Amino acid sequence: PVMKDSPFTEKFFTQTLDHFNFNSFGNGTFCQRYLISDKFWQNGSGPVFFYTGNEGDISDFALNSGFILELAEQQGALVIFAEHRYYGASLPFGKDSFSRPLVGLLTVEQALADYAVMITELKQQLQADNCPVIVFGGSYGGMLSVYMRLKYPNIVTGALAASAPILSTAGVGDPRQFFRDVTADYEAVSPQCSAAVRAAFQQLQDLAARQGEPVCVRIQSAFALCQPPSAPRDIHQLNGLLRNAFTFMAMLDYPYSTHFMGNMPAHPVKMGCDIMLRGPDLLANLRDTAAIVYNSSTPLSCFDLYNLYVECADPTGCGLGPNSLAWDYQACTEVELCFESNNVTDMFPPMSFSQADRRRYCSERWGVTPRPGWLRLQFWGDALSSASNIIFSNGDLDPWANGGVRRSLSSSLIAINIPEGAHHLDLRGANDEDPESVVRARKQEAELIAGWIQAERNRQKH
Amino acid sequence: PVMKDSPFTEKFFTQTLDHFNFNSFGNGTFCQRYLISDKFWQNGSGPVFFYTGNEGDISDFALNSGFILELAEQQGALVIFAEHRYYGASLPFGKDSFSRPLVGLLTVEQALADYAVMITELKQQLQADNCPVIVFGGSYGGMLSVYMRLKYPNIVTGALAASAPILSTAGVGDPRQFFRDVTADYEAVSPQCSAAVRAAFQQLQDLAARQGEPVCVRIQSAFALCQPPSAPRDIHQLNGLLRNAFTFMAMLDYPYSTHFMGNMPAHPVKMGCDIMLRGPDLLANLRDTAAIVYNSSTPLSCFDLYNLYVECADPTGCGLGPNSLAWDYQACTEVELCFESNNVTDMFPPMSFSQADRRRYCSERWGVTPRPGWLRLQFWGDALSSASNIIFSNGDLDPWANGGVRRSLSSSLIAINIPEGAHHLDLRGANDEDPESVVRARKQEAELIAGWIQAERNRQKH
Repeated sequence: PVMKDSPFTEKFFTQTLDHFNFNSFGNGTFCQRYLISDKFWQNGSGPVFFYTGNEGDISDFALNSGFILELAEQQGALVIFAEHRYYGASLPFGKDSFSRPLVGLLTVEQALADYAVMITELKQQLQADNCPVIVFGGSYGGMLSVYMRLKYPNIVTGALAASAPILSTAGVGDPRQFFRDVTADYEAVSPQCSAAVRAAFQQLQDLAARQGEPVCVRIQSAFALCQPPSAPRDIHQLNGLLRNAFTFMAMLDYPYSTHFMGNMPAHPVKMGCDIMLRGPDLLANLRDTAAIVYNSSTPLSCFDLYNLYVECADPTGCGLGPNSLAWDYQACTEVELCFESNNVTDMFPPMSFSQADRRRYCSERWGVTPRPGWLRLQFWGDALSSASNIIFSNGDLDPWANGGVRRSLSSSLIAINIPEGAHHLDLRGANDEDPESVVRARKQEAELIAGWIQAERNRQKH
Repeated sequence: PVMKDSPFTEKFFTQTLDHFNFNSFGNGTFCQRYLISDKFWQNGSGPVFFYTGNEGDISDFALNSGFILELAEQQGALVIFAEHRYYGASLPFGKDSFSRPLVGLLTVEQALADYAVMITELKQQLQADNCPVIVFGGSYGGMLSVYMRLKYPNIVTGALAASAPILSTAGVGDPRQFFRDVTADYEAVSPQCSAAVRAAFQQLQDLAARQGEPVCVRIQSAFALCQPPSAPRDIHQLNGLLRNAFTFMAMLDYPYSTHFMGNMPAHPVKMGCDIMLRGPDLLANLRDTAAIVYNSSTPLSCFDLYNLYVECADPTGCGLGPNSLAWDYQACTEVELCFESNNVTDMFPPMSFSQADRRRYCSERWGVTPRPGWLRLQFWGDALSSASNIIFSNGDLDPWANGGVRRSLSSSLIAINIPEGAHHLDLRGANDEDPESVVRARKQEAELIAGWIQAERNRQKH
C-alpha cells in the first residue's frame, strides 16, 4: 500500500510516450503510476471508478477524494487513481523531462490518450470488459474527466467533474472573474474585511512609492521578509505572494482543517478576516493573514519572497517543485489562465496578465508560443449540447466556480451547485462538519451515477 | 479556377505543422490547399459544405463529387474542398515529406485538427460565424467526416459519410469480408463468371508450379508481360496485380464511364465477365479483363509487373506516385487493412496479410510499428450510440460497404443503402444512367441535411 492503512496498491503501467507521432520516439514507453483498490469491487461485474489525475502527485488526490471510495463501497466499484504524465512519479524522461524538446510530450491530448489506453488495457487484464467506467476529477482533473466523456464516450460512460473551470481556462468569460470571486468570499464574511485587505495593500503601495532605504527596512520588518525589498520587482513579487495567500484560503475554505496543497485550518477565510480586523496595524494584519498559508507547515523565522511563491504563467499560482514546472508549461501552451486583478472589481493591487504578457513570458521561459482558443476548439468550449452524462459540480465559495458550467444544459448535463462548498469539497470524504448542501450534492451525484451505470447495462443487454 | 469551367478557386491556408506538440516544430506552418466556391452561397447566412479531403489530389475529389455542388445550389451553401496533409499539393516539407522523421506528422488526428482549425478560421475570415457546417467525404474521406462529427461537434453540425469503411479499417469485422464481397459482384453477374475467374487463376498457378524457362515464356506471352516471370515472387506480384484489377472494377462499377482513379468504362464488372466468358483461353481472358484497368489510359505494348501495381500495406492497393507513399504510411500506422483472399470465401489465389505480415513490412519500409486497435480506441469503433447527425451511405456493389455501418443506430445515425451503387456513387453528380436507388438516396440525404441545418438555426435562436 502506498499510504498507511490505505486500500490502494501502487502500480505502474507501461505507457506509450507519443500517441500522436509514430516516428518521434518510435515504440518508446514510460512508466505511468496508478493506484488501484479492488477492496469493494464486485469482481468482474461492478463498475470502474477512474480518477483522471491532474497537476500533482496522485496520492495527494487519492488522499483527498474520499467520496470516490465511499461511493465505490456503495456501488461495488473498482477504484483507480491514475497519475498525469509529467507529474509525481510519472516523469517520462526522469529528471530530464522538462528539457526541450522532451517536455513537448506534455499535452492535454497525450494525457487523455494515456487514460483511454490505460482503461482499455486494464479492463482486459482484469477481465472487466463489460464493466461501465465512470471518470472522476477535481479542478483540472475535472476538466480531463469532461474531456474524456466528450472524446472517448466509447470508453467512458459518464463523468463527475468537480470544480472544473472548463470555460475560463478555454478563454470563455471575463478575465476579471477569478479575483473578483476571491474578493467576494472575504466580502461575504464582512464588507469591513475586504475593505481592510484593500486598505492594507494600499498602505503597502504608498509606502513602497516613497522609496529609499528606510522604507525598504520598514517593509522588510512589517512583512518579516528575509531580505529587504530593493526594487519595484520585489514589491511586485510581494504583492503576488500576498494575493496568492488570499486565493488559497478562498479555494480551500473548508469547514475543517485539511492537508491538501499544504496545511489549512478550518474556515481559513473567516480566520483571515478575524486577523485583518484585529487591530490598527494593517501591514501586520496582512502579514499574519498570509502566514496562515505560508507558515502553516513549518514555522518560518522570515518569509523568503522568491522561495515561498514563484510567479509563472498561472496567476492563481503554480506551486513549487517539479510539479509546478509541468503546470507552468501547460499554462504556457494549452491552458489559458489570463486572469487579472485591477483593484476595481477586486480588492488586490492591479496585476494584469494579458495574452501578450503570457506570450512574452512563455517564449522566454519555454520557447513556446501559446495558442489562445485551442482548448475551446479542441474541447468544445460552451458548445456542449451534443454531450451527455456529465455532472458539473461547483461550490459557491470557490473562485473557480464561475469559470465552469453553473446551469444544467440538458437532462444529462447536470450542474450541481453547493452554496457552502469550496474547491471540490464534494470529492472529499464525509465529515461531521460537512454542510447539508454538500451532503445533498453527494447524494444526487451517487444517484445520477447509479442511473448511468444501469442504463449502460441495459444497453449492453440489447 | 483550378479546373476549366470550374466554380472553384484554388487557395492555400497557413496551417500549423504539429497540432499536438508545442516543442517539435515550434510555430512551424505549411501551405494547405483548398478549393472554394461561393457561387451558390447565401452570403454570410447559408451553410458551409466542407469536404474532408482524403488520400489524393483534392481536385480529383472535387471533380467526382458533383452532388455536393448540386446540393449547395439547392441549399445556398458555401462549398470548400480541403486537401489532406501529405497529399496532392499539400506536402508539409515538399519532396522531403516522406523522409523520417518528417513523415511523422502524417496522422488522422493531425488531419482532423487541420480541418477543425481551417473551418474555424475561414468562418471568421468570411464572416460566416453562425453558418452551420456540414462535412462530406467519400471512403477514407467519409471516415474523416464521421470522425469530425464525433470529435468536433462544436464545429460540425452533421456529416455525410459515403462508403466509409469505419469498422473494417478499425479492425472490427472479418478480414475475409473485402475479397468475398469483390467476388460476390462477379458472382452476381453470373456464377459462371466467378467460376471462370477462379479457374483462370488456378490455371496460372498450375502453370507456374511446373517451373522452368519454357513456362516462364508461356506465362510472359499469355499475360503480355514486359519481362518473363523468373521467380515465385514474380508470380505473387502477378497475382496481386490481377486481383487488384478485379477489385478496382468492383469498387468503380458505375453505370457510366468515369475518370476517377484512372479511366473506367460503364459497368466494368459486366464487361469483365463478358471477357472472362468469351472463349476457352482462360489466361487470355484473364489478361484482357485486367487490361480494362491497366490499359485504360494509354495503350501499353506490354504489362510491366512492378510498375503497374505496387504491393504495400493496403491489400486493396495504394495506387502509384507520391500519394501512394502517404497512404502506405497511413496503412502502416493507424488504418488497419489486413484483408485476405483465401480461394475459399473468394475467387482469388490465397494471399494473406496478417497483423504479423503488416508489422514486418511496416518496420522494414517505414521503421514504424503499427498500433492495432488504435483507430477503434480513438474513434469509437462500433460504440457510436452517443453520436448524432451522421449519414452512413453505402452501395451494395461496393466491396467496402460491409466494412461500414449498414443499419441505422438511432434516429440521427442513419444508414442509407443503395442496392445498385458502387463506391460513393451518391457523391457523384446526377447522371441519366443513375439507378433509381441513388436518386432516392440523394433526396433522403438532402432532406436530412436540411433538417440538421434547420435544427441548428433553431438552437442558435434560443
